[in-house]
Amino acid sequence: MSKKKSWYFLAAVVGALVVAMVSFAVPNPTSAVAGEENGYYGKKAKYVFYFIGDGMAMPQINSTEIFKGTLSSSDPMYKEKLSFTVFPHQGMQTTHSTSSFITDSAAAGTALASGHKTANDVLGVDPANKIKYKSMAEMAKEKGMKVGIVSSVSLDHATPAVFYAHEASRNNFYEIALSMSDSGFDYFAGGGLLAPTGKKKDRPDALEIAKQKGYKVVNNQNEIMNLSRNDGKVIAIQPGLANEEAMQYEIDRTHQLSLADFTKKGIELLDNPNGFFMMVEGGKVDWACHANDAATTIRDVMAFDNAIAEALKFYAKHPNETLIVVTGDHETGGMSVGFSGTKYETFYNKINKQTMSFEELDKKIKAYRGIVGENGANLQDWLPILAKDFGLTELTAYDQQRLADALAQSMLDAKKRTKDEKSYLLYGGYEPFSMTVTHILNQKAGIGWTTYAHTGVAIPVFAQGTGGEMFQGYYDNTDIAKKMMSIMGVKFQ
Amino acid sequence: MSKKKSWYFLAAVVGALVVAMVSFAVPNPTSAVAGEENGYYGKKAKYVFYFIGDGMAMPQINSTEIFKGTLSSSDPMYKEKLSFTVFPHQGMQTTHSTSSFITDSAAAGTALASGHKTANDVLGVDPANKIKYKSMAEMAKEKGMKVGIVSSVSLDHATPAVFYAHEASRNNFYEIALSMSDSGFDYFAGGGLLAPTGKKKDRPDALEIAKQKGYKVVNNQNEIMNLSRNDGKVIAIQPGLANEEAMQYEIDRTHQLSLADFTKKGIELLDNPNGFFMMVEGGKVDWACHANDAATTIRDVMAFDNAIAEALKFYAKHPNETLIVVTGDHETGGMSVGFSGTKYETFYNKINKQTMSFEELDKKIKAYRGIVGENGANLQDWLPILAKDFGLTELTAYDQQRLADALAQSMLDAKKRTKDEKSYLLYGGYEPFSMTVTHILNQKAGIGWTTYAHTGVAIPVFAQGTGGEMFQGYYDNTDIAKKMMSIMGVKFQ
Repeated sequence: MSKKKSWYFLAAVVGALVVAMVSFAVPNPTSAVAGEENGYYGKKAKYVFYFIGDGMAMPQINSTEIFKGTLSSSDPMYKEKLSFTVFPHQGMQTTHSTSSFITDSAAAGTALASGHKTANDVLGVDPANKIKYKSMAEMAKEKGMKVGIVSSVSLDHATPAVFYAHEASRNNFYEIALSMSDSGFDYFAGGGLLAPTGKKKDRPDALEIAKQKGYKVVNNQNEIMNLSRNDGKVIAIQPGLANEEAMQYEIDRTHQLSLADFTKKGIELLDNPNGFFMMVEGGKVDWACHANDAATTIRDVMAFDNAIAEALKFYAKHPNETLIVVTGDHETGGMSVGFSGTKYETFYNKINKQTMSFEELDKKIKAYRGIVGENGANLQDWLPILAKDFGLTELTAYDQQRLADALAQSMLDAKKRTKDEKSYLLYGGYEPFSMTVTHILNQKAGIGWTTYAHTGVAIPVFAQGTGGEMFQGYYDNTDIAKKMMSIMGVKFQ
Repeated sequence: MSKKKSWYFLAAVVGALVVAMVSFAVPNPTSAVAGEENGYYGKKAKYVFYFIGDGMAMPQINSTEIFKGTLSSSDPMYKEKLSFTVFPHQGMQTTHSTSSFITDSAAAGTALASGHKTANDVLGVDPANKIKYKSMAEMAKEKGMKVGIVSSVSLDHATPAVFYAHEASRNNFYEIALSMSDSGFDYFAGGGLLAPTGKKKDRPDALEIAKQKGYKVVNNQNEIMNLSRNDGKVIAIQPGLANEEAMQYEIDRTHQLSLADFTKKGIELLDNPNGFFMMVEGGKVDWACHANDAATTIRDVMAFDNAIAEALKFYAKHPNETLIVVTGDHETGGMSVGFSGTKYETFYNKINKQTMSFEELDKKIKAYRGIVGENGANLQDWLPILAKDFGLTELTAYDQQRLADALAQSMLDAKKRTKDEKSYLLYGGYEPFSMTVTHILNQKAGIGWTTYAHTGVAIPVFAQGTGGEMFQGYYDNTDIAKKMMSIMGVKFQ
């Protein structure tokens, strides 16, 4: 090599090295389709899981960690991490909507699915209902990925619906049901539909329309478990649903399919060379928190966690092309790991003996009312039930007074019940006796609540896998969607 | 250059580039003194700020962001970020002690300062009081850095004390006061001492002993402001302290020095070529939360935030050698941004008119009791005060009933007051009328509380500067100390 040539070579090597170093730090404009806005220039995720625990924030998560510890260890200070609380990346999101610091699930879901803020009650559109906000699920579908939507509540409920519907109100259930089959998404599973034939029950059945559009609709446990990729697009509805077309609360579930079962089946059906996007909602965490029922809340967080464990099994096989994001849409109940009466102690073992949700207790109360009538109630009749099904013993005079007052209210026809401010604060419009039972039991465990609605605190985000590092920091719920779109290689609109 | 020489040169250049690239990614074993355990191999921080908001978690932070928004904008949905909630790195810490899922400040502080868990009430030692846990402040001092400890509560209180004292009980105030001057730390500032002459007031004055040990003790505003590096080691105590030798609540503060003033002065005195470590505690956030007084809580978070702003000014001058970590030791009060009575709305403007802390209201109640006696109270006397000093108008029948009941209790000698379970839940041992006033006002704003004690939820961590990226993720409070030690270049023991 001549002196001149060797210098050319040197320059080339140095140049190549500089390029290699810079390309490590600077975006590659050809691959950064949607990355520029959100700073993600890494590899795109082929398989994307979005787990949304409705109403699930740090108090619900920490309570479940403590409760699982009491189940699995005799060490009273043992706390068991959940499948997602050991994820390597963690952040916090603000949740306010355009109309309130306390969001509802429609506005929060719209932000989480599309990256746009809207008002409470509004679903996938702007507050004036003029602009449709495209969800990442719709973008994934357009891109050729398969799409799955799983929820433990009805499939037309706000959180699942924000991924495929665009409505001025989350209560337009019939229109939402039609959008479901219009979406062309590949897998809907979990709960049912709230108004498949419209509010007046005079419209063509939305599930029949879905069949005409090529969906296989299954509502039988064996058929659901036997679904295969050959079945094409599927709507799989849990047979024997609970109230409001939702799956059973985990605490009440016996032989029915679990959220993990629906997640596992979804992975099996959606897995394909073009990748997939799957949203799984733990929808009844929220409902249990609205009713201030800690044991039922925690069991549903555990069911949600088991569903995430299914995604982790898939992740273990595809660690370099899978993203798992776990978050909540808002906190519900103002739950806390601490109550004035128990001061600096908690006794989560006390909620371990609860065998049924508040909703199942409601049924027992209704049956009792049918037997004893308005004035025949006697708290003594209930003490064995409270002991056996709730582990609620050692009642103080104040507990007994609250229970007796509530039982008297529960025996009245709804119209005759006291409707003043104090009664609302005590019972929140729920069955008074059920509310008092769970309140007293929770308080003895050291768990407090401040509301029957949602709250406005920031919500944790946990992420693992491709692009997971993007989810660290303190940002807005709309940013989660933008980050995920960027990692999926679709463009925020 | 000959052919051979040019090849040597090429090899040298390539080699240098490779070394440069590798050193970016791989630990440098010579500089990683204490880094190995915690995965930090970067540059050591020369200036380290540790801001601990006692009792401050996400609800307190989010409430302050909302409240600051109502102060600074007519947009009802405006939320103003705090100086630290825009930090680039954020994580979450678990706070349980060895004795409870609900920690106290002694156990939490020990973990935050030394990286070791201990039991509630225990300060800087193991639960059996056999092993002293060295704090990062003590390590910093040994290393030749200057050390400052600032708190809005007394300087012998648990959170400041864990950085320099080792006691079986946080209540060993005299021993703690002696440890303070034994520490040789350079700057103590803020509140005073709870027992400078011991429990029986028969011991040599701890501040006199401090003087003998070379400390300059100042208790005068001008003297404090005029302190200079020539003054050497300093104990600077706010003149005219409030209850329990603490600084005033921010909402009550008039001409006195602020937490930011003490922080700014600390930076001035501590800045030196060997670097410094400074811990600043926002200690009365906790006290206001114990009393469920949201406006007072929020004003103290704002004062704490202003102190952090002082550190940020220093950071701006030394961005490549400064670390700022902001966290809380636990949550207090089970505070939430949401209350059953206000459902999905919040009205933080309603607490904007509160002009005094519950403690100042207590004084007014005591004076009134002195005038009217046990049976002369009339709620009407209080309505103008509640309107003027708390903005509390539009009282419902239920509000008036609760206020009248509480006022009657407040007029009684403490021994004569009702002491049953219900009374404790209502008033938590505080002045009944004050508690009822702040509870009702907070509830109208949409702010709920579940306890007069601490709670066990995870606490956010915010970090900026050298090594700040280490603070992302979900970890234990002990990990914060280990990470900070690693970044400071001192060894966890």
